Amino acid sequence: MSPPVKAVVYGVGAMGALLTRLLVEKGVEIVGAVARSPAKVGRDLGAVAGMDRSLGVLVTDDAEALLRDREADIAIVAVDSYLETMAPHFRICLSRGVNVLTLEEETFYPWRRAPAIAAELDDLGRSTGATLAASGVQDVNWSLAVSALMATAHRIERVRGRSTWHGDEFGPAVGRYLHLGWDPAQATASLAGQADGMTSQTALEALAAFAGLTPTHHEVSTELMIAEAELRSGRLDLNIPEGTVRGLSEVVRLATVEGIELELEMAGFVHGAGETPVNDWAIEGEPALRVQSEDFPGRLLTCTTLVNRIPDILAAPAGLITVDRLPLPRYRPGPLRN
Amino acid sequence: MSPPVKAVVYGVGAMGALLTRLLVEKGVEIVGAVARSPAKVGRDLGAVAGMDRSLGVLVTDDAEALLRDREADIAIVAVDSYLETMAPHFRICLSRGVNVLTLEEETFYPWRRAPAIAAELDDLGRSTGATLAASGVQDVNWSLAVSALMATAHRIERVRGRSTWHGDEFGPAVGRYLHLGWDPAQATASLAGQADGMTSQTALEALAAFAGLTPTHHEVSTELMIAEAELRSGRLDLNIPEGTVRGLSEVVRLATVEGIELELEMAGFVHGAGETPVNDWAIEGEPALRVQSEDFPGRLLTCTTLVNRIPDILAAPAGLITVDRLPLPRYRPGPLRN
Repeated sequence: MSPPVKAVVYGVGAMGALLTRLLVEKGVEIVGAVARSPAKVGRDLGAVAGMDRSLGVLVTDDAEALLRDREADIAIVAVDSYLETMAPHFRICLSRGVNVLTLEEETFYPWRRAPAIAAELDDLGRSTGATLAASGVQDVNWSLAVSALMATAHRIERVRGRSTWHGDEFGPAVGRYLHLGWDPAQATASLAGQADGMTSQTALEALAAFAGLTPTHHEVSTELMIAEAELRSGRLDLNIPEGTVRGLSEVVRLATVEGIELELEMAGFVHGAGETPVNDWAIEGEPALRVQSEDFPGRLLTCTTLVNRIPDILAAPAGLITVDRLPLPRYRPGPLRN
Repeated sequence: MSPPVKAVVYGVGAMGALLTRLLVEKGVEIVGAVARSPAKVGRDLGAVAGMDRSLGVLVTDDAEALLRDREADIAIVAVDSYLETMAPHFRICLSRGVNVLTLEEETFYPWRRAPAIAAELDDLGRSTGATLAASGVQDVNWSLAVSALMATAHRIERVRGRSTWHGDEFGPAVGRYLHLGWDPAQATASLAGQADGMTSQTALEALAAFAGLTPTHHEVSTELMIAEAELRSGRLDLNIPEGTVRGLSEVVRLATVEGIELELEMAGFVHGAGETPVNDWAIEGEPALRVQSEDFPGRLLTCTTLVNRIPDILAAPAGLITVDRLPLPRYRPGPLRN
């Protein structure tokens, strides 16, 4: 029987901690872990990830030394959200021939948003035989599942998605990004030029590639979501008074040569009583079609979907591989073997 | 620009009529139509299909002559539901090198239910260069979409589907099959040995193939659905008194080597006020997952999905090709060209 997959957990924030548990439960051998925070470096990964046992892996801040010394099949990278800021981390892995699977959203389909860095990383991976790819909730729930729904339509005018997430589930950086508790006028001024619909745009571009459509241009619009009654973010220890910002709704619209409009609204906000995250897709055309998931665990699904993708990445060609060039994603019962 | 796809509509019942409209709207050139009924033979296909215009194609009952004389790229076959009774029709097409795309449910994944006929038709298609394949609602809604949902799960114990359809939407043969208006005791006696869960079983076997699971055995159970108040089937001109049969619920359970149970309930019944067909899939495991479609137009989706598959079948290898060997289904804006 082939040996277990050997992985480095590269980034041990909220997502990296969740990934660590899933990887261990899927029989992956974790051979190293990388973090920056002095509160994490030098401690056992199991403790840092909030597990109730030691994993025999000490967190390091020296990724270069770790990847030079340890034999890893793949690095699971969850550090930041932009290809530009992630590229140095990807280079460390790829230059040593270690495959990279990341949650970073732009890497999922970077050819229009960040073509120069994408091409450089593609070349680097090809030169060392390593693959770079991204997965997450966009892999299935916003691409494959939507493309599948489209394949049942006779005539499509527009595809509209709405996916919401709880702004309380993440850390202070996300809280600042959402402008939680801000005065609306000040938040509007702060937002000018900031929000760019990245996740939605890359998801829609991947969806277009899946569905055989050719994008022409896109529009992004951002709206503040205002608290109609006082809300509380427990994790951020923050009260959000009535009339202040409780989150953001970003809508990206992608036009295509084929005349079909693709639209995705991503709304992150602190939820009130009875509100749950949803993932809801509708096709306007013949027939009108709709699939809905209430109480949608998007944050968890980003991690579970990525872990199921590991065997596909290990088998993929070298270079930057976008989702339309990967095989159909599958449930992997585990243990994951090389 | 390549010429339009040339198709024969083979079977002009309720489904064939619907398919005819969709094919015409997708730019397919219909070069012939086959039916048995003297009420249809000799008339223009447009009239028989309930369209408001002539299609310049006369319905014939001589399939052999039609397929000998006309150049067709593909026959769209919607006659009956079992591979054994459909095989003579498939042979007429395949022996003349004409590709076949059918709604017939067993053809979708026949290797366990009808392996001998499947192998014979596979050989015949290979010998003439023609492809035989099936599509329908099971292609996406019960296979690909479910496999995609599974690919987002960390741990799966069971996959449960429930799909319902309106027993009033079809003809008298379906009404008899559903035992509409029968006394429950007499219906139970009549059902002994009849119902076999065919559609669910083939859908689940295709799903297993998609998801990389290995089936071991299956169970079928059938339950009568009893009217709790008098119901009316307008199309069948039939009253269904309280306490009599208003439809059937068939449940197929497929066990797998991997320990995951796949279950699909298909329920066809005359609907009461406020009831609509549903397509509802749930994954029991971590996390629990569910997708729901209410007011599910399964009959229409069977036809729209099949028409979107035409380019895949024309490009497929010769022989009997099951869905796990076809590319990802796609929305086809049309016109469909060869």
